[in-house]
Amino acid sequence: MIQEPVSADALLYERVASRIGKLIDDGVLRPGDRIPSVRRSSHQHGVSVSTAVQAYIALEDRGLIEARPKSGFYVRPRLHRVLAEPRASRPSASAKLVGNTALMARIFEAASRPDVVPLGAGCPSDALLPTTKLNRLLAAATRSNGARGIGYDLPPGCEPLRRQLARRSLDWGCHLGPEDFITTCGATEALILSLRAVTKPGDIVAVESPTYFGVLQALDGLGLKALEIPTHPRDGLDLAALGAAMRRHRIAACVVTPNFHNPLGCLMPDANKRALVEMLAKREIPIIEDDAYGDVQFEGERPRALKSYDTKGLVLLCGSFSKTLAPGYRVGFCAPGRFFEKVKALKLTNTIATPTLPQLAIAEFIQRGGYDHHLRAVRRTYAEQVQRVSHAIAESFPPGIKMTCPHGGMFLWIELPRKVDALELSDRAQREEISIGPGPLFSAKQQFRNFIRVSCGHPWSGRIERAVGVLGSLAKRAAA
Amino acid sequence: MIQEPVSADALLYERVASRIGKLIDDGVLRPGDRIPSVRRSSHQHGVSVSTAVQAYIALEDRGLIEARPKSGFYVRPRLHRVLAEPRASRPSASAKLVGNTALMARIFEAASRPDVVPLGAGCPSDALLPTTKLNRLLAAATRSNGARGIGYDLPPGCEPLRRQLARRSLDWGCHLGPEDFITTCGATEALILSLRAVTKPGDIVAVESPTYFGVLQALDGLGLKALEIPTHPRDGLDLAALGAAMRRHRIAACVVTPNFHNPLGCLMPDANKRALVEMLAKREIPIIEDDAYGDVQFEGERPRALKSYDTKGLVLLCGSFSKTLAPGYRVGFCAPGRFFEKVKALKLTNTIATPTLPQLAIAEFIQRGGYDHHLRAVRRTYAEQVQRVSHAIAESFPPGIKMTCPHGGMFLWIELPRKVDALELSDRAQREEISIGPGPLFSAKQQFRNFIRVSCGHPWSGRIERAVGVLGSLAKRAAA
Repeated sequence: MIQEPVSADALLYERVASRIGKLIDDGVLRPGDRIPSVRRSSHQHGVSVSTAVQAYIALEDRGLIEARPKSGFYVRPRLHRVLAEPRASRPSASAKLVGNTALMARIFEAASRPDVVPLGAGCPSDALLPTTKLNRLLAAATRSNGARGIGYDLPPGCEPLRRQLARRSLDWGCHLGPEDFITTCGATEALILSLRAVTKPGDIVAVESPTYFGVLQALDGLGLKALEIPTHPRDGLDLAALGAAMRRHRIAACVVTPNFHNPLGCLMPDANKRALVEMLAKREIPIIEDDAYGDVQFEGERPRALKSYDTKGLVLLCGSFSKTLAPGYRVGFCAPGRFFEKVKALKLTNTIATPTLPQLAIAEFIQRGGYDHHLRAVRRTYAEQVQRVSHAIAESFPPGIKMTCPHGGMFLWIELPRKVDALELSDRAQREEISIGPGPLFSAKQQFRNFIRVSCGHPWSGRIERAVGVLGSLAKRAAA
Repeated sequence: MIQEPVSADALLYERVASRIGKLIDDGVLRPGDRIPSVRRSSHQHGVSVSTAVQAYIALEDRGLIEARPKSGFYVRPRLHRVLAEPRASRPSASAKLVGNTALMARIFEAASRPDVVPLGAGCPSDALLPTTKLNRLLAAATRSNGARGIGYDLPPGCEPLRRQLARRSLDWGCHLGPEDFITTCGATEALILSLRAVTKPGDIVAVESPTYFGVLQALDGLGLKALEIPTHPRDGLDLAALGAAMRRHRIAACVVTPNFHNPLGCLMPDANKRALVEMLAKREIPIIEDDAYGDVQFEGERPRALKSYDTKGLVLLCGSFSKTLAPGYRVGFCAPGRFFEKVKALKLTNTIATPTLPQLAIAEFIQRGGYDHHLRAVRRTYAEQVQRVSHAIAESFPPGIKMTCPHGGMFLWIELPRKVDALELSDRAQREEISIGPGPLFSAKQQFRNFIRVSCGHPWSGRIERAVGVLGSLAKRAAA
């Protein structure tokens, strides 16, 4: 690349930017702090206002500061590692029928009780959702759609919503059209329809280890065997291990969450994404991609979907608005590639249609720019919450624990001392009105005995801080 | 029974009632005609107003006339047989994997196109649904529920709705509590969760012959084999035939629509309901009861559910509001008896939750009495539509056809001359922009080659009348 000549102007604003950067590095300005206005900075550093503006843009580009509308510039929460990360998982190499459904239901129930501090919840706090705006759009949809709102919205489902999805798919690195989507009752229905479309009972399905317990329960319900593949807490699925597993087993499908995995929070590098899609395409193995958290990166661009590398129609992309907008609206989607007709037929026999008016409300919200606006706030909030909870854990948990440092999503995955039994810890925490996700829930073989998932989906508060403290004490006692 | 002495008063009103009854019998007063006011009748027949009132009550008791609020008394549509009924089905005695999914999707699609006369549609016309009222309640629910409306409504689902269902269950002959119900995304989800709860792939499931194609497709999707049992167009499932089949096959479950079956419209007598439940209870075989049409009787009391005879918790009752209120709201329910926990766990992995606000809107509608009020109108309308379409078919179709005479629901099942191929007829009709349900759609073995289902879910109109005429001509040509 030819270096452009550096102008005097660039030198000036670069000097200002590096001074402010140093203040941030030194902790003089801390995450969440408001930095001086452009006018004030121009005065402080003796440069023109336009030079100060250029400096701020440069700092924003580097992810050090961020503009908040009508408020000014702020130091961004920094994604620095708080604790050492757990090593990649080493699950045993045999496939297994799952079957710990009762545990899953218990966690769901505990997490939704209002008297419980929901560190086990997999969905965001109401406080982070655009409740009033969405409910207002839903009310407006009841008025403007009349009979259409009450009638079946047969598969592939709500055209206005599919149009918005097609437009958004550019951000995922895809070029999907409205005709590539089928709307569903949440990503959960998309996932189960995808599984049913590409497997038959008894088949082996490769999954990350650990993985979202909803995937494991879905496999269980369909009589499918889970084959857990070693997964790295930063880069995700271990492709070499998957390759080895493919030589030993006849794998019918692979379920992957490449972007901000639940519970690991890992983000698969683009090179790995491409390699994974190519590797499975060679053997014509379908990939079910769960992209429920793809919109919630903490910095930089929205990550690509595996689907963006799919040239053979083998990737079934599943997503929803349950993690960012309205879990109770039950609106998700599937872009099932070559399995389109199969998924569409299964959708008819599973629920016939997706609720009409909630889809129209969400389509309208996206179309008006409300979703993008809301995502900017949600990303910042989640990043802050993850950072706050990370620090609180580092302070109150026993020494020697390891913890992930996610760059998106809302989960922390924590490796506790070997002596700690996560299921016992979960029971004890529940007696203190605190819910957590015990590690065995995330494994078909109930591994991760001494791991827990902590959710950061609720706004930081004294209540959360105290709960993390209590949890830390319980963990210390168990480790002693 | 001891005969009570007949009073002079009773003689007087009985004379008036029988005079008016004769006018109806002779066709002087015809279905839908308004009969004279009580005052006018008292004058016409020279009796007191109170005697005339008694006469009208007696006529109402006999099902000859009906009161319409704020409007007066009308001659009821009469459920007299228009044509001879088809004989009971005689399906072959082996179990079979299904697999005509494409046909089902085609019928659904054709029936929902606005340019097509929807004689093939399985759901009511928008014009018969309380669109404005329900949408208004939904809008109100968005305002009054705030964050609750946007959050997950975890299984068993919406408590206010389950409370209303418990109250309504008395009308079904049941005494269910709110804790017996799980709400679902329509009866379709209730059905598929029930099937998944009590069967495993490869199992044999007994079904009526013919039966709702949605059931067949669900079996297909789950790798289950359909065993078609002879079914009578008036009394429903042939219990002796089912008994014989149970001796020959190992049946995992039985799917039955005892009340106003789709497509037969048959109503199983209470004695048969009790016998069926007892017969399967002896062998511990679960019954999945589809009661989607139970609320739409044309006269008399709401029929009982099979569930009302269930002493062992083996009946999984499935229902919805899609046939009477709002297909697009996707609200149904399951009362799964002893399989409660299983169905609840499967619900979590299938769609996690049922859409929150539509459930609250429907619960409110029922609670305010809107549902009962609406049902009274719907029952009358469906009865009239079925009667009108029956007559039109008798006039325009080839001689010698046979047809059911349903006492509820919205379907007519027609046996055409042997020469007529229903699939060809369906294709020809579609070219004339008319959709129908070809017989083979309702059989795992694609029997009923010369049968069609005609839906009466849309208000009688010149358009429907012309379409039935065209259909009759096509059938005559095919029979010639």
